[in-house]
Amino acid sequence: MTKSILVINGPNLNLLGTREPDIYGAETLADIKDRMTEKAASLDLEVDFRQSNIEGEIVGWIQDARGRHDAIVINAGALTHTSVAIMDALLAVGIPTVEVHLSNIFKREEFRHHSYISSVAVGMITGFGSAGYLMAVDAVKNIVK
Amino acid sequence: MTKSILVINGPNLNLLGTREPDIYGAETLADIKDRMTEKAASLDLEVDFRQSNIEGEIVGWIQDARGRHDAIVINAGALTHTSVAIMDALLAVGIPTVEVHLSNIFKREEFRHHSYISSVAVGMITGFGSAGYLMAVDAVKNIVK
Amino acid sequence: MTKSILVINGPNLNLLGTREPDIYGAETLADIKDRMTEKAASLDLEVDFRQSNIEGEIVGWIQDARGRHDAIVINAGALTHTSVAIMDALLAVGIPTVEVHLSNIFKREEFRHHSYISSVAVGMITGFGSAGYLMAVDAVKNIVK
Amino acid sequence: MTKSILVINGPNLNLLGTREPDIYGAETLADIKDRMTEKAASLDLEVDFRQSNIEGEIVGWIQDARGRHDAIVINAGALTHTSVAIMDALLAVGIPTVEVHLSNIFKREEFRHHSYISSVAVGMITGFGSAGYLMAVDAVKNIVK
Amino acid sequence: MTKSILVINGPNLNLLGTREPDIYGAETLADIKDRMTEKAASLDLEVDFRQSNIEGEIVGWIQDARGRHDAIVINAGALTHTSVAIMDALLAVGIPTVEVHLSNIFKREEFRHHSYISSVAVGMITGFGSAGYLMAVDAVKNIVK
Amino acid sequence: MTKSILVINGPNLNLLGTREPDIYGAETLADIKDRMTEKAASLDLEVDFRQSNIEGEIVGWIQDARGRHDAIVINAGALTHTSVAIMDALLAVGIPTVEVHLSNIFKREEFRHHSYISSVAVGMITGFGSAGYLMAVDAVKNIVK
Amino acid sequence: MTKSILVINGPNLNLLGTREPDIYGAETLADIKDRMTEKAASLDLEVDFRQSNIEGEIVGWIQDARGRHDAIVINAGALTHTSVAIMDALLAVGIPTVEVHLSNIFKREEFRHHSYISSVAVGMITGFGSAGYLMAVDAVKNIVK
Amino acid sequence: MTKSILVINGPNLNLLGTREPDIYGAETLADIKDRMTEKAASLDLEVDFRQSNIEGEIVGWIQDARGRHDAIVINAGALTHTSVAIMDALLAVGIPTVEVHLSNIFKREEFRHHSYISSVAVGMITGFGSAGYLMAVDAVKNIVK
Amino acid sequence: MTKSILVINGPNLNLLGTREPDIYGAETLADIKDRMTEKAASLDLEVDFRQSNIEGEIVGWIQDARGRHDAIVINAGALTHTSVAIMDALLAVGIPTVEVHLSNIFKREEFRHHSYISSVAVGMITGFGSAGYLMAVDAVKNIVK
Amino acid sequence: MTKSILVINGPNLNLLGTREPDIYGAETLADIKDRMTEKAASLDLEVDFRQSNIEGEIVGWIQDARGRHDAIVINAGALTHTSVAIMDALLAVGIPTVEVHLSNIFKREEFRHHSYISSVAVGMITGFGSAGYLMAVDAVKNIVK
Amino acid sequence: MTKSILVINGPNLNLLGTREPDIYGAETLADIKDRMTEKAASLDLEVDFRQSNIEGEIVGWIQDARGRHDAIVINAGALTHTSVAIMDALLAVGIPTVEVHLSNIFKREEFRHHSYISSVAVGMITGFGSAGYLMAVDAVKNIVK
Amino acid sequence: MTKSILVINGPNLNLLGTREPDIYGAETLADIKDRMTEKAASLDLEVDFRQSNIEGEIVGWIQDARGRHDAIVINAGALTHTSVAIMDALLAVGIPTVEVHLSNIFKREEFRHHSYISSVAVGMITGFGSAGYLMAVDAVKNIVK
Repeated sequence: MTKSILVINGPNLNLLGTREPDIYGAETLADIKDRMTEKAASLDLEVDFRQSNIEGEIVGWIQDARGRHDAIVINAGALTHTSVAIMDALLAVGIPTVEVHLSNIFKREEFRHHSYISSVAVGMITGFGSAGYLMAVDAVKNIVK
Repeated sequence: MTKSILVINGPNLNLLGTREPDIYGAETLADIKDRMTEKAASLDLEVDFRQSNIEGEIVGWIQDARGRHDAIVINAGALTHTSVAIMDALLAVGIPTVEVHLSNIFKREEFRHHSYISSVAVGMITGFGSAGYLMAVDAVKNIVK
Repeated sequence: MTKSILVINGPNLNLLGTREPDIYGAETLADIKDRMTEKAASLDLEVDFRQSNIEGEIVGWIQDARGRHDAIVINAGALTHTSVAIMDALLAVGIPTVEVHLSNIFKREEFRHHSYISSVAVGMITGFGSAGYLMAVDAVKNIVK
Repeated sequence: MTKSILVINGPNLNLLGTREPDIYGAETLADIKDRMTEKAASLDLEVDFRQSNIEGEIVGWIQDARGRHDAIVINAGALTHTSVAIMDALLAVGIPTVEVHLSNIFKREEFRHHSYISSVAVGMITGFGSAGYLMAVDAVKNIVK
Repeated sequence: MTKSILVINGPNLNLLGTREPDIYGAETLADIKDRMTEKAASLDLEVDFRQSNIEGEIVGWIQDARGRHDAIVINAGALTHTSVAIMDALLAVGIPTVEVHLSNIFKREEFRHHSYISSVAVGMITGFGSAGYLMAVDAVKNIVK
Repeated sequence: MTKSILVINGPNLNLLGTREPDIYGAETLADIKDRMTEKAASLDLEVDFRQSNIEGEIVGWIQDARGRHDAIVINAGALTHTSVAIMDALLAVGIPTVEVHLSNIFKREEFRHHSYISSVAVGMITGFGSAGYLMAVDAVKNIVK
Repeated sequence: MTKSILVINGPNLNLLGTREPDIYGAETLADIKDRMTEKAASLDLEVDFRQSNIEGEIVGWIQDARGRHDAIVINAGALTHTSVAIMDALLAVGIPTVEVHLSNIFKREEFRHHSYISSVAVGMITGFGSAGYLMAVDAVKNIVK
Repeated sequence: MTKSILVINGPNLNLLGTREPDIYGAETLADIKDRMTEKAASLDLEVDFRQSNIEGEIVGWIQDARGRHDAIVINAGALTHTSVAIMDALLAVGIPTVEVHLSNIFKREEFRHHSYISSVAVGMITGFGSAGYLMAVDAVKNIVK
Repeated sequence: MTKSILVINGPNLNLLGTREPDIYGAETLADIKDRMTEKAASLDLEVDFRQSNIEGEIVGWIQDARGRHDAIVINAGALTHTSVAIMDALLAVGIPTVEVHLSNIFKREEFRHHSYISSVAVGMITGFGSAGYLMAVDAVKNIVK
Repeated sequence: MTKSILVINGPNLNLLGTREPDIYGAETLADIKDRMTEKAASLDLEVDFRQSNIEGEIVGWIQDARGRHDAIVINAGALTHTSVAIMDALLAVGIPTVEVHLSNIFKREEFRHHSYISSVAVGMITGFGSAGYLMAVDAVKNIVK
Repeated sequence: MTKSILVINGPNLNLLGTREPDIYGAETLADIKDRMTEKAASLDLEVDFRQSNIEGEIVGWIQDARGRHDAIVINAGALTHTSVAIMDALLAVGIPTVEVHLSNIFKREEFRHHSYISSVAVGMITGFGSAGYLMAVDAVKNIVK
Repeated sequence: MTKSILVINGPNLNLLGTREPDIYGAETLADIKDRMTEKAASLDLEVDFRQSNIEGEIVGWIQDARGRHDAIVINAGALTHTSVAIMDALLAVGIPTVEVHLSNIFKREEFRHHSYISSVAVGMITGFGSAGYLMAVDAVKNIVK
């Protein structure tokens, strides 16, 4: 049966392609959605792709994922470093989660080196630009099979 | 005259009863609301019971409490450890506040040992499960009389 | 069958009612004992109420509680922040323990924010003055039933 | 041509004039808006003045400012000390930003001494009450000419 | 009656206009003195403008300001981060003080993020180049009226 | 033309399949080598797969990689957290590097949260077991094309 | 009227004169008592001189001093650095207190540089050997007159 | 001539055999005393074996050991981590001391990793259960011969 | 033969009697000089009493004291907490030094709790107001005899 | 059946007897080997005694110990404080390990107070010179029986 | 053409030869000046050799060096560890600077391990006594050629 | 008689001339060896010049230097910051040692500011490129004469 992935993008990721292209690349979030959906389909996976700037909305999406999605791929953006609420939501629903970052968070400011999500996720992929989202699909395929 | 308590529940508390029952117990938030309302009534107190995943919405509720409620009981969940805005709102309205936690936050991860709310609340009740909400009603009765 | 609570008060609590009344209130420790005993009786509980300035004596009381008391309520005063021995004694006897503080320890000096007892107690009640002792009786009732 | 300033006020600033007047002064936010608009007009500047308690909404306003506003004046309130998302949004849009605080944040609690915004703003004005907003208009005039 | 401002510049500010112009701008300290004096005069304020490389001399100027000046504007340069003596002198004379920095100290090395002066000044203006001195005149006008 | 990947495994990875299988999985390093070689071949990539317990030997391999390999995939094991020499070698040869860890290093002891390699690598893949080596092949394909 | 001083000596001070004479001098505690009593008499002051190795006993002496003594001189020995209970007792009784140390605590191990007593005492005399006790009598004379 | 060892056991060690047997083993303190006495006798050593929950009492025992005992074996329990007074007493009497712990203190909570006693003892034996007491007899034999 | 004391007062002490009288008392520095000279004379000691706001000048005075003075009494004011140069000068000349502070530095801001001078002085007297200077004369008498 | 102990000595221990004899004693490593072998034999134990300066070689020895030795006694010298690789090797083979140090590591530099080995060893013996190796034989006897 | 070196000596270096000779050697500063001048002459370099106890004076010398000297050799003494103003002056004039210390600063107190100067100097020579000044001449020759 | 210097170069220094030439210069290690040998000869000194990537090999070289070399010049590269074993070896052989670094380690990453070697070396020369090796020859000449 086709498995479903909830893909969550946090604050400012909607600006992708226009924002600091030397760090984040020239692709838009819509481009990533398309490539990710295509790759997922080739592996018999579905993708539900979203973005929000509001922590509480993301918490709600995670809560509602129970019974609807088999895995979560999350790039929480700036909330990665500050949100205990998102960590708690992931902990509560118990859906396997893959953490993705476009840039290598360990090459940036000190405060971006800590992630609340990493301690509840299956694993992290960081620094490979948009290719990281596609690698996350592979990771999910492995986990849910 | 009957006094009114605003009861605020933060992110993920809506999952109560389904989420990690070994830590949080099997009761739902609705169960707690019912027992708390009943106990309050027996002490001539009213309860306005709410839950939100969004920090800014909780800030708004606290602001609007002036002139409407005589005390606040708050379990801010994950926001306990990260929200200066909720702390500031409580400071601004000056309504006596009781802080409640279901689990004993001092038995959990290091980052859950610090609460921004505790420095503006009258006091804290932590670790007694849902019974803590009922104890908070007693505490309010004492404070507002 | 009537359950028994051992209530332990640490250093300087014998001065209650005379010492810094703006922080600790005007009641004496004897007043608290009377009110606590009365409330306990109404819930079919007995109270054995003590005070000591000596860490080692408190350690001994806790050790001797096995087989005699069903719960411990402890306000260890200054020893809260410095005594590993009391923590160890509580750990050893395994009797459910409720930690109480008259003032809100999170509103005082930084070194009073850490408690060795909180990591072995069921929970903590802090900041409600002498009412905290009565709330502890409720907490015990819940725990031992 | 008339330049436009987006003025952003964070959580609890809507309470201004009612909240802790000994720290924040007796003026309301509407008063500040009026005085700021008047001064801006005298310097051939327009003002778009807003307030929100929700971090994600503020992030959205900053994103939408591109192509609409020539400068941002921001008093992020409590979010100054906790929001990486607002810092990232300012970084992404690249609009010159002036940080304002009513009270001198260096005279308050230790955790208010750090600002995520200060490292991406042109500069900071702190401690001059509502006059700081008017000084920010001067600062903007200097920057955008 | 015309009010008088003592303006104090600390070590190395005499090099202004020749030193690291990409950070500090091309104006000389004499240019700033002229523009500041002119603006002050338009607001019925007098300016006594000085520079010294010696901490003890600056301490002496502050002490002598009592009865002579109504406000102090200080850019203590490197001494901002190391001099308790200047902080104590400002505390002792009790004259309202405005702290100014040409560059945004929060964008520079970590050790420049802390100021001993900020905790005794009315407020701080940082990052607006020489315009910060003129904004300080506005701030003084507000304070002394 | 076929590109070549140098795959380096640090101390104790030769024990794979026998060491703490609940953390590291039951596959041997030879299994991983086989699967990785097969996947690489399908993408027109070659794999040179090695393991050593000696920091100095690994440093030598990295030095010798110049002119021979187009990318490095490294799981430095315990040396991840202590070896400045390996970091320097990677910096010196300037070959794009992908960091892999079998277990999620952020879920283990505090001292395993810091990696000297992450600040010189293109990115990190952590927590996906042996699948992480295959994901690294995808990452390399992306980088070298 | 003759004023009375309670002099308290903490753990191990009974060994004085025999213990590490190069640090503490050759006088015994009895010698100090005699010289201190003599000097006090010359200034119309009485001395009640005691020593204990038990924290709780010292706490009790301080509590009982109310109404009996006009000042306390305390050399708490090792308890200086560890006892919050003694600090609390001094705070509670509100009797002016002079802290004395034989050796200069700032020339010894790091952990001896912090004193819980210094924040509640009028002042501290450290490093002058037994002469410090006599200087404390002068200090008391000044305080109680 | 037969040498004498003073063996000191700190708080809660009297509970041995009943308390957390998975950590501390099933032997009682009396069992250890018997085995230790027997082994000492075989090496021509005497044992004076004691236990106390009171820091001040232990300090007194150490002071009195001069001229009576040739070595001290101490398991100070929880006081290991908090008592400067015991450290000072050992320093003062100058009797060679062997520090013993039943469990490996380095495998337990962070605060149990630091011992005030270790810096004045000849050496430490930790983690071998009651066998550590017998090993200490060997160590003493070596030291006093 | 009459011994000579060099008394050094650091920055801002010339303001004594006018500056924050609730902390420092109403006496002027001249008053202290007179009382100190008088007491010294009664003990056959001479006093050379000085004040400076300049660190380098104080360093020079200390250097020149060799062969001229038998002891130094120093209240370095704010330089206590920041000047390694004064510490080095005292170390170099090797003249016995008594450190004095008017207020109890341990009751003030955290950064005033550390003194560079205390580690090279014979001892410290802090918190007894101007009486501390007279006690320092006694201390010197003891040291130089 | 005779049990076998692998004894591992780390860097610089081959210099024993020539290196800083006031700290490490005058015995050579060969002397220790002889005494240890003799004592082991008397307890029906065999000893395989080695030394290496190379971390990677020690890691290899530990790996090869499986199926050959029943216990490990290790004095890793300087590698105690830096080698995660040795710690991992011990963790991987799961052979009971006794940690030995000649000098008391807690009396030396701060950085020698931390051992990566202590958290995976059964226990530690430190400060008894070469006698510690013999005590380790007793410890092993206890563990393997 | 002959190049010129400005040699700056900070506080207390004028005492050289008399102060703690076991640490600093028996030569006077005049001796060093002579030897340094002689060596410089042999390399066609001139030396302008100075000493001051006053930070502000040293700042002035550095400022005036522009256009007059080709290199600076500085031993700032105690100011090495505290003066941001000297660091800023060196940064502003941009003259190549060699940092010298007589003793090895890394073998002394912790607070002497940090130098503000080292981050703006070409390099540091520390621990070779007065020979370090001559080595600095070699370093300058290398830099200015 | 001709004295001999052992010159030790640590990991990656064999890459000199090819690795990051903007930091380390274009000379090869062979060039440095030649210049150093020539200068040493002119001062009647011999040079034994080596390089290794293996910590254990360097430890061995240092051990073997006793009786063969009169001084050691060491640039331990990355091992400077991590190797306690090299530090111990230097301590053990007691041969005077000069520490050299090509780049100024205080201008690079924070973790390169700490050196285990500096506390056992006579002194350090850092930041003068290959010239530092020649300056070290001068330093050795001074030390061994």
